[in-house]
Amino acid sequence: MTRKFAPVVEKIKQGKRFMVISHVNPEGDAVGSLLGLASALRTLGKDVVAYSADLIPDPFGFLPGADTVVRSLEGEAPFDVTFAVDCGQLSRLGHEFLAFEKWGILINIDHHVSNDNFGDINVVDPEASAAAELVFDLLKEAGINITPDIATNLYVGIHTDTGSFRYSSATPESLEKAGELVRLGADPRKIAVRVYESYPAKKLKLLGKVLNTLELVRDGLDGKVATVVASQDMMESVGAGKGDVDGFVNYARSIEGVEVGVLLRECSPRDYKISLRSKGDIDVSSVAQSFGGGGHKNAAGCNVQGTLEEVKKKVIDALRDKISTKEKL
Amino acid sequence: MTRKFAPVVEKIKQGKRFMVISHVNPEGDAVGSLLGLASALRTLGKDVVAYSADLIPDPFGFLPGADTVVRSLEGEAPFDVTFAVDCGQLSRLGHEFLAFEKWGILINIDHHVSNDNFGDINVVDPEASAAAELVFDLLKEAGINITPDIATNLYVGIHTDTGSFRYSSATPESLEKAGELVRLGADPRKIAVRVYESYPAKKLKLLGKVLNTLELVRDGLDGKVATVVASQDMMESVGAGKGDVDGFVNYARSIEGVEVGVLLRECSPRDYKISLRSKGDIDVSSVAQSFGGGGHKNAAGCNVQGTLEEVKKKVIDALRDKISTKEKL
Repeated sequence: MTRKFAPVVEKIKQGKRFMVISHVNPEGDAVGSLLGLASALRTLGKDVVAYSADLIPDPFGFLPGADTVVRSLEGEAPFDVTFAVDCGQLSRLGHEFLAFEKWGILINIDHHVSNDNFGDINVVDPEASAAAELVFDLLKEAGINITPDIATNLYVGIHTDTGSFRYSSATPESLEKAGELVRLGADPRKIAVRVYESYPAKKLKLLGKVLNTLELVRDGLDGKVATVVASQDMMESVGAGKGDVDGFVNYARSIEGVEVGVLLRECSPRDYKISLRSKGDIDVSSVAQSFGGGGHKNAAGCNVQGTLEEVKKKVIDALRDKISTKEKL
Repeated sequence: MTRKFAPVVEKIKQGKRFMVISHVNPEGDAVGSLLGLASALRTLGKDVVAYSADLIPDPFGFLPGADTVVRSLEGEAPFDVTFAVDCGQLSRLGHEFLAFEKWGILINIDHHVSNDNFGDINVVDPEASAAAELVFDLLKEAGINITPDIATNLYVGIHTDTGSFRYSSATPESLEKAGELVRLGADPRKIAVRVYESYPAKKLKLLGKVLNTLELVRDGLDGKVATVVASQDMMESVGAGKGDVDGFVNYARSIEGVEVGVLLRECSPRDYKISLRSKGDIDVSSVAQSFGGGGHKNAAGCNVQGTLEEVKKKVIDALRDKISTKEKL
């Protein structure tokens, strides 16, 4: 664990004009870390631009400060310091940022094990549950007061990135810091209603249709793989888009005895986006890689071409090989 | 907050033979508190009977010590001390226990605001997130070593009763104690796989069918009420039972703009079990009471007779009255 915040605190003291940025297609931890840190710097009277090339996605638009995020750097004066939070590679900061160049000293604060230390200063700790946990530590070390708005943002980062404290990233520290954030003003119930109980109705209607396709694969797999399908027809019939499918693969994984959940989403006729989620030791990233995709051990994805039956067979065959090889070891 | 554990610690020291019991139809906190406390007393070399009239329900059978639970008190010698955990009323300890009588000193450890202090010694704190949190505090005060097995049981109690730290019961203390329990050996990922990712396939198939019935009520309610239906036909078609419907009402509540989610489960032709869940200030217990049922402000239930359309109309009319009265205030 190397959380050397001293040089970062120094730059906060010296700098006047700051940018805070996270990765493209931000999720809860990216948004919470970005907004929490931007808000903290503003309490010091700094000139702060919170930037995201992509829109703050649902359901995170309710977070304090979300309305201050700018989506273009056009005309922006140079920055003294730029904080990149929750981002593993420079390229994931987006084209406009990379072309902008006047970002000043780049400080990289992240918890991804794959982070390549692209910053001028790097505080990268894969043992942190979330980038928001590192921002929390930074604010404490810098002696910056954590307001209820900051606490709300950081709590959302930790709560979402630990899967509501259900993933292996749910460490003692993450729970204890979440507790302190609640003490500082984060409201777990109000947050949960916005994050987990504000789905568009079309998403739940689509979930019904997708679950109707649930299949447990018996042939040589003994129910260790479960598949669900989201077709274009289903999405159109309820007015849903591809974003509404987010998270559905977890339902396939959540079944007793299932080791790998698979979602096949039809992108266009004969092209399927495959999402793979494994429960334990099965490394699905290598399966995704065999189809030209990628990801992590327990969460990966790829695109596979063919009819639904062809695609399903290709993916299941690859998973059968993977699981049987693993069982022989 | 009155957590006066000193007399309880005294009884633990003095007693030799203990029973630990919780309420009938136990859920995660009841089971976790019961098993955690029983296990702790055993580490002191006490003679301990962990008793539950009802079977430990899925998915909690995996919890350490679940196999030690006895389901009958027949032939049991008298006890020095009986701990009732997570139980608000004596009657909810079950018929066999009440008829048994030889329970010794009855110690009531609970967090329900409705607890009527039925014990000889009562430690009742509605501010505690879970009975398991009170058991944790008791073990600390009694200086009893918390083993990984005990920590696992207490973590499950806190995690399930706070809705994965999404309910208003998710206090700073509950998060911090959960963090300490992880430090003591509870494994959040392993626990989550057993508690939240081990559903029978028939439950998810049934969920698909139930979600296909989702309706947002517009007429005078502007989408503030959402209904889902589980018919006998649906359950039979996938081989599911009434227990598989548990939690489905939350999907109706989880929609943007919805204030009250309603599940109508067909018990028999012309008899429906109604589950009501509200998000915020709408008190659904009074609506359930108007049909002879009961519950809490945000979670209540009742039975209503008639055809599906008749029952739905009765319930929606009652909710419309409730919500419009509330809005006029």
